Amino acid sequence: MRPARTLRPSSVSRVLGPRHVCHRFVSHQADRSIAQLLQWKPAERVDNVVVNGFVRSVRPMKTHRFVSLGDGSSLAPLQALVKADGAEGLTVGAAVRLTGSWVSSPGAAQSHELHVSKVEVLGPSDAKTFPIQKKYQTPEYLRTMPHLRPRTPVNAVLLRLRSEAIASLTQFFAGRSFTQTHPPIITSSDCEGAGEVFTIMPANDAPTPADQDGQDSFFRSQKYLTVSAQLHLEALAQAVGNVWALSPVFRAEKSDTSRHLSEFYMLEAEMSFVDDLGPVMDLAEDMLRSLSTNLIESATVQDLLFRSPHSGSHLAPADEVRRRWEGLMRKDWPRITYTDAIALLRQKADLFTHKPTWGAGLQSEHEKYLAEYVGGGEKPVFVTHYPRDIKAFYMRETQTAGSDGAGAVVDCFDLLVPELCEIAGGSMREHRVEPLLGAMKRQGILKPPSEGAADEQTGGTLDWYTTEPDAYLES
Amino acid sequence: MRPARTLRPSSVSRVLGPRHVCHRFVSHQADRSIAQLLQWKPAERVDNVVVNGFVRSVRPMKTHRFVSLGDGSSLAPLQALVKADGAEGLTVGAAVRLTGSWVSSPGAAQSHELHVSKVEVLGPSDAKTFPIQKKYQTPEYLRTMPHLRPRTPVNAVLLRLRSEAIASLTQFFAGRSFTQTHPPIITSSDCEGAGEVFTIMPANDAPTPADQDGQDSFFRSQKYLTVSAQLHLEALAQAVGNVWALSPVFRAEKSDTSRHLSEFYMLEAEMSFVDDLGPVMDLAEDMLRSLSTNLIESATVQDLLFRSPHSGSHLAPADEVRRRWEGLMRKDWPRITYTDAIALLRQKADLFTHKPTWGAGLQSEHEKYLAEYVGGGEKPVFVTHYPRDIKAFYMRETQTAGSDGAGAVVDCFDLLVPELCEIAGGSMREHRVEPLLGAMKRQGILKPPSEGAADEQTGGTLDWYTTEPDAYLES
Repeated sequence: MRPARTLRPSSVSRVLGPRHVCHRFVSHQADRSIAQLLQWKPAERVDNVVVNGFVRSVRPMKTHRFVSLGDGSSLAPLQALVKADGAEGLTVGAAVRLTGSWVSSPGAAQSHELHVSKVEVLGPSDAKTFPIQKKYQTPEYLRTMPHLRPRTPVNAVLLRLRSEAIASLTQFFAGRSFTQTHPPIITSSDCEGAGEVFTIMPANDAPTPADQDGQDSFFRSQKYLTVSAQLHLEALAQAVGNVWALSPVFRAEKSDTSRHLSEFYMLEAEMSFVDDLGPVMDLAEDMLRSLSTNLIESATVQDLLFRSPHSGSHLAPADEVRRRWEGLMRKDWPRITYTDAIALLRQKADLFTHKPTWGAGLQSEHEKYLAEYVGGGEKPVFVTHYPRDIKAFYMRETQTAGSDGAGAVVDCFDLLVPELCEIAGGSMREHRVEPLLGAMKRQGILKPPSEGAADEQTGGTLDWYTTEPDAYLES
Repeated sequence: MRPARTLRPSSVSRVLGPRHVCHRFVSHQADRSIAQLLQWKPAERVDNVVVNGFVRSVRPMKTHRFVSLGDGSSLAPLQALVKADGAEGLTVGAAVRLTGSWVSSPGAAQSHELHVSKVEVLGPSDAKTFPIQKKYQTPEYLRTMPHLRPRTPVNAVLLRLRSEAIASLTQFFAGRSFTQTHPPIITSSDCEGAGEVFTIMPANDAPTPADQDGQDSFFRSQKYLTVSAQLHLEALAQAVGNVWALSPVFRAEKSDTSRHLSEFYMLEAEMSFVDDLGPVMDLAEDMLRSLSTNLIESATVQDLLFRSPHSGSHLAPADEVRRRWEGLMRKDWPRITYTDAIALLRQKADLFTHKPTWGAGLQSEHEKYLAEYVGGGEKPVFVTHYPRDIKAFYMRETQTAGSDGAGAVVDCFDLLVPELCEIAGGSMREHRVEPLLGAMKRQGILKPPSEGAADEQTGGTLDWYTTEPDAYLES
């Protein structure tokens, strides 16, 4: 904590005199979070320690109450010992401020505990109706109360992890002179083919049939919520060099699986003036290794990796999480072409329900096998150069003659990790107008406008692609 | 640049043999951005220097062309000298890679220039139709081509500044253990009173009259784009402690002024377990001072602050920008109550079109005067404790008896800077149910549900407010 400062608003006091100079406020905040307190192990007792938090549980003894207190800074709670006759209002969910002595604890579960001399209930809680109790509660149940869900220890640790990951990624990209941008959310582009997008309108404008073509609407034409920042980032990469974005994207898919969300955050990056796929994969690999190496020392990750095997039984086992984490920190992740991957899978064809076939997409079972086997169960695996016909129109056709022949495959990669499989993908962007228009026609994306103009004319809106250099990473 | 690494995908090579091990790609990227090149002043000529960029202008000489090249990394361009007979394709807007010798320049405008031996046109540009020429172009004109606008030097410098500001803010909040969160964009809450929100629906679902109440819709009830993360952040601050967010917010206001956007990014933070307004203002002040102090050394800010007075004539003068920037770096910003501010303004009442009156909002002319006069034309100014009736229902009534009496004013502040006026605001949040419901009723926000239930019953949805501690900053 910094020392209190004296305010000297010279220009105000000259005008209004000292009476008007506003006073300095003194804060009564706790000096330490619970995570910091749990690390603090003084040999002698320390008096007048103040801690703020929410009551997680209360265990009644004959003359005292053992109170578990959490503030979101740690998985483990702080144990407070409160006299029974001073424990009024210390019910589960209550927001409290406790003052007392920090003393070494006779119990095995914690090194120190707080012997409370003063209790302040800042926000009371009705123990009968407060829905989060100290027991296992399913994610589905917790999802019904989004305002309280993050108060559970596991959800809080995930929020902290996410925050630390963002700070680490921001540092990583800043260190490489990538410009962080926030392309528009409201957009008229549709990066991934027509269909499952949300459209928007002012809530006060009741929809009328005349509005349906968007002509009379707020934006004068129909607008959508973005499904990807890619197109905008491609333009920005040609303005300020390498760029990245971490921004929300939206999908209107009617699906209730754990892999489909209406709204999620996606990290996307585009590099300019890159000639081939190597540096793009290097970036993805370096980024994830930097992230995992950077975070391993944080208290949050230590909480996650070294948690007791009993806590949070619906989560992957702690030693499995640790093994995957260590894989991310290793160097030189394997890179295998799609064609070689198919050859490898066909040698083990009897393991799979779906026959591995060149030209078809990799099934989930195939990806799981590749991630485990090629990555040795630890390192992530790049699978590169997929067939042209199963990938997006904007990916550049591979020009180097390989066993597949030029043009049969595209310069792209998927990055597979054990169990979860694809966590990132990327490609070289085709920037030449003719091949791009050809790919769009082949995939049925480029259609004549309804007013009857010829195919050729529609290329006009793509003219600015001509000034694009090669471009590059989507993850 | 890091050295090329050798790939050793041991598990792959065991299976597939060395033939299948994918080769390492070698990148031909330039070693330096143009900003870095411009800082590089070797005494001797250096050969084989590679630079990528976009042609900003071409000046024809008898035997040579002077080419100005930009890559978004600097306001100033790089000057390249190309032989006339090798300059084909070097037209404005073209993406090029130039190789040559870096030599000291006889011209006064730059210390060094590139004598080009090899030209590669990566993306050609039709000089006749490329719309961004080297001359002043209005923001309104540039806004008609959002994909090219960031290629202008001033727009590129603003993108870089924004990126550096975000990185600095991320570091600031991480250093104070604030958790960065991203509350949902699609929401059913409306933080700022009914009205100007966007609603969403799948683009494929044509609106029908039955849909208007939202019962049959994608989300089963009507959903909106968020206007503020505040309510979500208040809940999160009670789960993981102090939180912040930098996320897009949306307003469906039909207004075409420079102060109204349909979509913009807002930085919001909420602190938990804070007893009064002092630490909240300290945070806002420290955040902005940290930001300005941190960025002053960056090349981007030096570009902005020390640009020549002639460039970008539509911008504020460079010395005025520098004065404002230095004000942000000074300590102890003045804090004045609304009541004292009104007293001060009334002493100068003849300066204003609108009479300063206690109980009315501060007009733009009043704010400008306060920012200039109280802040001495440099420091930002906090104006605190506005009348209850002109502020939001969730702000806590001031309890300390002042000249205004308890309850007449609320614990809040606006932060004013010269010319732009309010750039941040904040308040203590009322967390007690009874005063909160009272304020909502007084402001007409709490209405009986349409099904005819009594007022009292509607408080039920606010039950979780009871467990909130004091909370806090909106900026």
